[in-house]
Amino acid sequence: MSVVVIGTVGIDDIQTPHGGVNAVLGGSATYASLAAGHFAPTRLSSVVGDDFPQDFRDLLGRSSVDLSGLEVVDGKTFRWGGRYSADMNVRETLFVDLNVVTDFNPSVPHSATVGAHVFLGNTDPAIQSRILDQVQDPRFVVIDSMDFWINSNWQALADVVARSSCVVLNDEEVRLFSRELSLPQAVDKILDLGPQAIVVKRGEYGAALATGSEWFFVPGYPLHHVRDPTGAGDAFAGAMLGSLHDAGATDGAELRRAVVYGSVVASFTVEAFGVDRLSALTRDEIEERFEEFRTLVAF
Amino acid sequence: MSVVVIGTVGIDDIQTPHGGVNAVLGGSATYASLAAGHFAPTRLSSVVGDDFPQDFRDLLGRSSVDLSGLEVVDGKTFRWGGRYSADMNVRETLFVDLNVVTDFNPSVPHSATVGAHVFLGNTDPAIQSRILDQVQDPRFVVIDSMDFWINSNWQALADVVARSSCVVLNDEEVRLFSRELSLPQAVDKILDLGPQAIVVKRGEYGAALATGSEWFFVPGYPLHHVRDPTGAGDAFAGAMLGSLHDAGATDGAELRRAVVYGSVVASFTVEAFGVDRLSALTRDEIEERFEEFRTLVAF
Repeated sequence: MSVVVIGTVGIDDIQTPHGGVNAVLGGSATYASLAAGHFAPTRLSSVVGDDFPQDFRDLLGRSSVDLSGLEVVDGKTFRWGGRYSADMNVRETLFVDLNVVTDFNPSVPHSATVGAHVFLGNTDPAIQSRILDQVQDPRFVVIDSMDFWINSNWQALADVVARSSCVVLNDEEVRLFSRELSLPQAVDKILDLGPQAIVVKRGEYGAALATGSEWFFVPGYPLHHVRDPTGAGDAFAGAMLGSLHDAGATDGAELRRAVVYGSVVASFTVEAFGVDRLSALTRDEIEERFEEFRTLVAF
Repeated sequence: MSVVVIGTVGIDDIQTPHGGVNAVLGGSATYASLAAGHFAPTRLSSVVGDDFPQDFRDLLGRSSVDLSGLEVVDGKTFRWGGRYSADMNVRETLFVDLNVVTDFNPSVPHSATVGAHVFLGNTDPAIQSRILDQVQDPRFVVIDSMDFWINSNWQALADVVARSSCVVLNDEEVRLFSRELSLPQAVDKILDLGPQAIVVKRGEYGAALATGSEWFFVPGYPLHHVRDPTGAGDAFAGAMLGSLHDAGATDGAELRRAVVYGSVVASFTVEAFGVDRLSALTRDEIEERFEEFRTLVAF
């Protein structure tokens, strides 16, 4: 049993008001699996082209991510370029070259998913649905999505949400998906579709966890310098699943702790460009900041 | 010793997407003193015209607010009209008739301020400064302000902030006042002016307390229906000061509890139009929701 992460592995160009980097390791599955790997055995399912650099593969391997599900096919690796606004709150996609991801149809062996904690990165909900068809008897399934799919394929996304344990969306996506302005009303409507929980990512304001019977809030960690927000949401989801796997339970208390671990790892991730900080993290650093989060809300 | 609230008492017209009310009791000092009154003896300093309705005076009196500092002068009472956007996050001022507030120069007796917890509602910082000249040996002074004064009279506001114990501003105001986009950097710059603490009001995201050495975050209470946000910030400040007075201390732990009490009373305030819910609150209801806030952040 392990954490199974299904999403993109790619090469990113990132521009921020404080600088930029080109051709760095990126992709939703990269961030999520590096984050989950700090807590639990993690298997990555994705596809790259024959141009995928060996040192990126080495970096993932050194972080104990199981790469047996990383297919290498003829062609070019997925590439993404983005630029952040002055306050880092708005991201503009400069280009997306899907390349080998276009025809990706991952085969996930049953042996890997029985009892597993599964993360489905943001992609066409029709593809997420086909992947879910292969996921046998998972313990917990977290899905991510975005405004593009909510607007273009609401029903398919609703179907996937109904089959998930937990959906991770940001503030605006929750309102857009539910067509409700009030967050509690929005969350109620999404929970009615069937998931056990919703995590609302609120950027610098932290995150909220709603399970129908109760709410849990974790603040954003007060960072003086956010270097690069790329991958924070995927790292959050990966750490959340990794810590749930590590805890061996998915009840209310463990979900709360998982959301804090997600916030901790996301807060480290944004301290440096790309996966630099995320991949260099130690479990001690994670535990130390976890305890710091307690002091941020203690009264 | 008591809580001393100095600000406006007026008559409001309020429109929201869910309805509206006309000619209801309003003003910063009204909300703040009603909130503080739930915790501590509270003295209100303000001015109204000879048209001020007796039932508004009765309402304040029933709530044990000491009205000996409420001057009645010839002329019309301060009036304000506002309208809220569909998501309640944007407020448009439809009209402001300062009326008798124009020439208000409150005299605050020394006997009332020695050892007192003082709230200075939002107004011209030059006026706040003149009021502070009269406030002798206060225990704790909270000031409120707004974007208009930051833009038009930055230096005067900086001088008032320097003389206060705590400034209460919203997210945008903190960034505007400090000219910093990063909240931690913004807060550092304002703390450098001299106040002991800053409370950042974040609307539905709750509030943050910064004291230089530490941060404290309280979430927004997840309300299904916000009826009327008017006065929430003033009620927050009033409850904060009232609970500090009640506790008899202003150290880190008491400040944290005061910020939670502020959040509790603000969350009740917005449940109904005007002061309807705020004035009808019981201490038991306050304590019950205070404990509920613990469960919102417990892990």
